Amino acid sequence: MADLNHRITLARRPVGPVGPECFATDDVPIPSPGPGEVLVAVRWLSIDPTIRGWMAMDTYLPAIPIGDPVRSVGLGEVIESNVDAIPVGATVFGLTGWQQYAVLDATATVLPDGIDPTAALSVFGVTGLTAYFGLLDLGRPQPGETVVVSGAAGATGSVVGQIARIKGCRVIGIAGTAEKCAWLVDELGFDAAINYRTDDVSARLGELCPHGLDVFFDNVGGDILEAALDHLAMRARVVLCGAISRYNDEAPRPGPRNLMNLVVQRGRMEGFIVMDYMGRADEAMADLVTWVLDGSVKFAVDVVEGLDNAPVALDRLFSGANRGKVMVRL
Amino acid sequence: MADLNHRITLARRPVGPVGPECFATDDVPIPSPGPGEVLVAVRWLSIDPTIRGWMAMDTYLPAIPIGDPVRSVGLGEVIESNVDAIPVGATVFGLTGWQQYAVLDATATVLPDGIDPTAALSVFGVTGLTAYFGLLDLGRPQPGETVVVSGAAGATGSVVGQIARIKGCRVIGIAGTAEKCAWLVDELGFDAAINYRTDDVSARLGELCPHGLDVFFDNVGGDILEAALDHLAMRARVVLCGAISRYNDEAPRPGPRNLMNLVVQRGRMEGFIVMDYMGRADEAMADLVTWVLDGSVKFAVDVVEGLDNAPVALDRLFSGANRGKVMVRL
Repeated sequence: MADLNHRITLARRPVGPVGPECFATDDVPIPSPGPGEVLVAVRWLSIDPTIRGWMAMDTYLPAIPIGDPVRSVGLGEVIESNVDAIPVGATVFGLTGWQQYAVLDATATVLPDGIDPTAALSVFGVTGLTAYFGLLDLGRPQPGETVVVSGAAGATGSVVGQIARIKGCRVIGIAGTAEKCAWLVDELGFDAAINYRTDDVSARLGELCPHGLDVFFDNVGGDILEAALDHLAMRARVVLCGAISRYNDEAPRPGPRNLMNLVVQRGRMEGFIVMDYMGRADEAMADLVTWVLDGSVKFAVDVVEGLDNAPVALDRLFSGANRGKVMVRL
Repeated sequence: MADLNHRITLARRPVGPVGPECFATDDVPIPSPGPGEVLVAVRWLSIDPTIRGWMAMDTYLPAIPIGDPVRSVGLGEVIESNVDAIPVGATVFGLTGWQQYAVLDATATVLPDGIDPTAALSVFGVTGLTAYFGLLDLGRPQPGETVVVSGAAGATGSVVGQIARIKGCRVIGIAGTAEKCAWLVDELGFDAAINYRTDDVSARLGELCPHGLDVFFDNVGGDILEAALDHLAMRARVVLCGAISRYNDEAPRPGPRNLMNLVVQRGRMEGFIVMDYMGRADEAMADLVTWVLDGSVKFAVDVVEGLDNAPVALDRLFSGANRGKVMVRL
């Protein structure tokens, strides 16, 4: 198989949960890079909730065509280069897709020396930028404010909470197991955590935020968003990052009953896509590198072995099995 | 009855539609103004959707106590004054409530000469300020953008649309009768109008806003909010002013299914309460007076005669019977 490119392709668009029927595999000739392109041997894949959206329909990017490799951020080694600035042997990341070999163009980002691939695909990658810009640009937390984050044990949420703590906020995480909640408080320095599978989220938020929450960073949507909207402080900011609780719905389900709390509390709810911030990545990276090096931001990775297990890795996000960033090592 | 104060009081908090059982009347002695207070003979009442909220529960103001006159902005003549700056004979407005006589304190606003009471309670009153600050401060319309307003034939919506037109926007109104729609386009200069009782609002918005809407100013909520969220342009602003379609619900109903469009389109949804802008009223008034005098903003009033008809006047808002500002003349 050395001269074939093994791929996991999109066989069927998901309706409801993403099952094995959505995927196929094939082996095709290894592509040749054209002028201005490089050939990459893929080593790592970043597994993100947005992949399900790309599989299902046009969103902020066109839907993945049926038969194409599943679109995914990945990281690999350049084995053939027609780009002067990207030598053979460099480690680059870009939209490699779920395959062994990918052709990227000159916009592929070269990974600086000394950055671990797991950090590059998590806290120093899209996940870290999402946490950084979503929290700071949209949430604008002020010292002494209360920040609540859902999906708090996930790749983005765990970094959001730690940045909020660095900014002098009280931080409450919402996660799905007692172990995750303990990890948030004991290891990551969250002030409190709520287990949404066993606690009444709205009631607990009422106890933990008697004066309301100033920032809600939402990765989950659905009932948890509604619970948070029950407890907005005056001029609260709700950052809509994602709604993983809803991505597997067969049809859109109704939203929160209490949007009028945005009026009463003069609240703001705002969505964003991290791609828009790529031009400002250096700004985030300067802080994130500092914080990781001085230990004030910790990151966790959830590594799944083998390209053929990429669908399993994706499922870990939706079942809530992961703690930290899900990635596949090829 | 000359020396009694006839009042319409809150008998019962509304659950569902506001019916006659929610009100009682009584006649009590005319109050005496204390130091720093004035006694006002009420001439006009401003009838606003928010009154239902004040009747039902604590919102941004405490709920009206049972047995108290229904809280309401009103306008009247000062007949006794213990405030140097407010002479007997002045016309003032403030929270008079639904009664013939009210005691106001020195913060009551004196109406300048030459302002008609109907204008003072609509385009130059809370309604005008709501339209002005909600649209300009939160909606931030830019020339050439598309602005959609619901409740467009109401007191606030009709002014929102006209200000948006002055700011160089394309303006689409949503209203509930063919007559209202014709009035918006023919008299107020809206570019188009949608009749929500006969049209498929989302489909019509798709036709009228092929590139999406940049600002949605919402007075209505519910299905109309959901329809608007289907058609957000990139970085659209949704201004939550009210949700009159929902105020009479017995229990909160689910919200829009498509909040994730705020993420995909990087949209913002924000609520506000006009009280917060009272310190900037002069800013709005300078523009609104200019626009009314030069004819670029027209305002309509829907006058109901007699204090005892105040409940009927309130009902006109919820049935959608009114065009423009509902007020009661005593």
